[in-house]
Amino acid sequence: MTPIAIFTTGGTFDKRYDELAGRLSFGDTHVPEMLRLGRSRVEVTVRQLMMIDSLDMTSEHRRAIADACLAAAEPHIVITHGTDTMVETAETLAADIPAERGKTIVLTGAMVPYAFGSSDGLFNLGSALSFVQVLPAGVYVAMNGRAFTWDKVRKNRETGVFERL
Amino acid sequence: MTPIAIFTTGGTFDKRYDELAGRLSFGDTHVPEMLRLGRSRVEVTVRQLMMIDSLDMTSEHRRAIADACLAAAEPHIVITHGTDTMVETAETLAADIPAERGKTIVLTGAMVPYAFGSSDGLFNLGSALSFVQVLPAGVYVAMNGRAFTWDKVRKNRETGVFERL
Amino acid sequence: MTPIAIFTTGGTFDKRYDELAGRLSFGDTHVPEMLRLGRSRVEVTVRQLMMIDSLDMTSEHRRAIADACLAAAEPHIVITHGTDTMVETAETLAADIPAERGKTIVLTGAMVPYAFGSSDGLFNLGSALSFVQVLPAGVYVAMNGRAFTWDKVRKNRETGVFERL
Amino acid sequence: MTPIAIFTTGGTFDKRYDELAGRLSFGDTHVPEMLRLGRSRVEVTVRQLMMIDSLDMTSEHRRAIADACLAAAEPHIVITHGTDTMVETAETLAADIPAERGKTIVLTGAMVPYAFGSSDGLFNLGSALSFVQVLPAGVYVAMNGRAFTWDKVRKNRETGVFERL
Repeated sequence: MTPIAIFTTGGTFDKRYDELAGRLSFGDTHVPEMLRLGRSRVEVTVRQLMMIDSLDMTSEHRRAIADACLAAAEPHIVITHGTDTMVETAETLAADIPAERGKTIVLTGAMVPYAFGSSDGLFNLGSALSFVQVLPAGVYVAMNGRAFTWDKVRKNRETGVFERL
Repeated sequence: MTPIAIFTTGGTFDKRYDELAGRLSFGDTHVPEMLRLGRSRVEVTVRQLMMIDSLDMTSEHRRAIADACLAAAEPHIVITHGTDTMVETAETLAADIPAERGKTIVLTGAMVPYAFGSSDGLFNLGSALSFVQVLPAGVYVAMNGRAFTWDKVRKNRETGVFERL
Repeated sequence: MTPIAIFTTGGTFDKRYDELAGRLSFGDTHVPEMLRLGRSRVEVTVRQLMMIDSLDMTSEHRRAIADACLAAAEPHIVITHGTDTMVETAETLAADIPAERGKTIVLTGAMVPYAFGSSDGLFNLGSALSFVQVLPAGVYVAMNGRAFTWDKVRKNRETGVFERL
Repeated sequence: MTPIAIFTTGGTFDKRYDELAGRLSFGDTHVPEMLRLGRSRVEVTVRQLMMIDSLDMTSEHRRAIADACLAAAEPHIVITHGTDTMVETAETLAADIPAERGKTIVLTGAMVPYAFGSSDGLFNLGSALSFVQVLPAGVYVAMNGRAFTWDKVRKNRETGVFERL
């Protein structure tokens, strides 16, 4: 089994509650803890690329994500990302990463922080990690139990649901 | 998108704590609640076939599961099942369901009841629901973030981990 | 057993995550749900006075809380409140509510929203509800498992801990 | 503030799920973790006396608990205990510990294991720890948000609720 790279970039997925400041903030990623909870035995390397709200993501941040994908030895990559601009990042990756590199890249995130009991994060991580193992090379968004190719998806801002275009 | 059938059979996945009797028991399945938590938008029909410990499962129970798979209109089926005899049921399904029916069947379960905070159930459900959408026809076990074909897997009883044969 | 009034005013205790806006917000109070979780059989009436961050609380808000205490038939009152200005509200109540009214008033709150798995809210509610039943008339703050009289407590902003003066 | 002794004896409170055996079992007590979650700053010493189901508790076990109370330097003692025979142990303690020792002893427990998300344990621990600080010397049961003197309480086995006699 080929190892899978997991790149974390922040987003709701990894927001936590800063109890002294009384607001949401970012600390280290929860991904390793989530993989333990899921009893995952998939061989992965987790790398924290950045830890920001996806609304604050610039084209430079997106280029850094693309560069990390290009530099990765792993052909299968999962990226945790804020949902607001996940599709925009997927577009950048599809444009910047040549198809002949044969990489399967799956972006996922969460509507509610993992640190909250009611989070969809663990479900989404299980989903993304599974899709990335079997989907053909390409850039995908895995949300709501489904996988969408990068150019056939949008986030419906009224409902919070990812829809096929 | 083709709808997916989810058959529940019990197992650790759906055990709950009976607070009057002070022991584990079965009630209704948690699958619909888990799909809501995962914000799943996959079209599914959930059907409770039985609600038993997989150590209590007989060949008749397994035949009932195979019959339900054969009767299902859906080509994609997820089965929640106790982990102790999941592989045995997978063998029965592989034997009883003709390959030309073209069904993709994924069995999954949990090491810790979903009702416990520390359960792998939500991760596994996200994983199984994703694998079933993209794997070719066949019978699989999805545990520990991986998918195994029915004849290439065993549960290691020392570690609780599913391993490839 | 005399019934107890529970007044909710908001604060971290009742913050929730607005998954469409991607930020913390207030909805209805979680107190009734928490009492069910705690299997509480104390006779209570829960009344939502306001639902605000305690940093946004004005002297008018505090007067409204005092008025509600004065108008309440119940001699025992628990108030859920943001921790940042809980002591200030306790001072107002001590000043505005005549001792001869014989009311035992206990303010409590949480460092982390109840909706988060890692909240101290349930512990604090159990604590406040117990202290209010046995402490003599007066105004108290119940946090960190302890009860402080209103004029002998401050919140240490470095540590988030309530300390005796 | 006088330190409080917390004696743990097992019971539902501390049951956990043994994922290899697929059944409930006992490990170390969750009390220190619960005190951290509750941000408790009460000075306590936690001592594990035994870790058993209260239905398995014999008169020797009860004598051991009474001995531990008598030997304790702390005048305030909280005991976590299975709910099924909590009242019986309270009776033993009331008989064996002379009133002139001036000890306030509060027994508490849980209807659902703390390790389950839906447990009343954290609420009950907050409650017991508060009652023990303010109640006069005597032996009490703290459940359902209330405190009962040892001879005025029974567990209703139909409803799981502790009631005043």
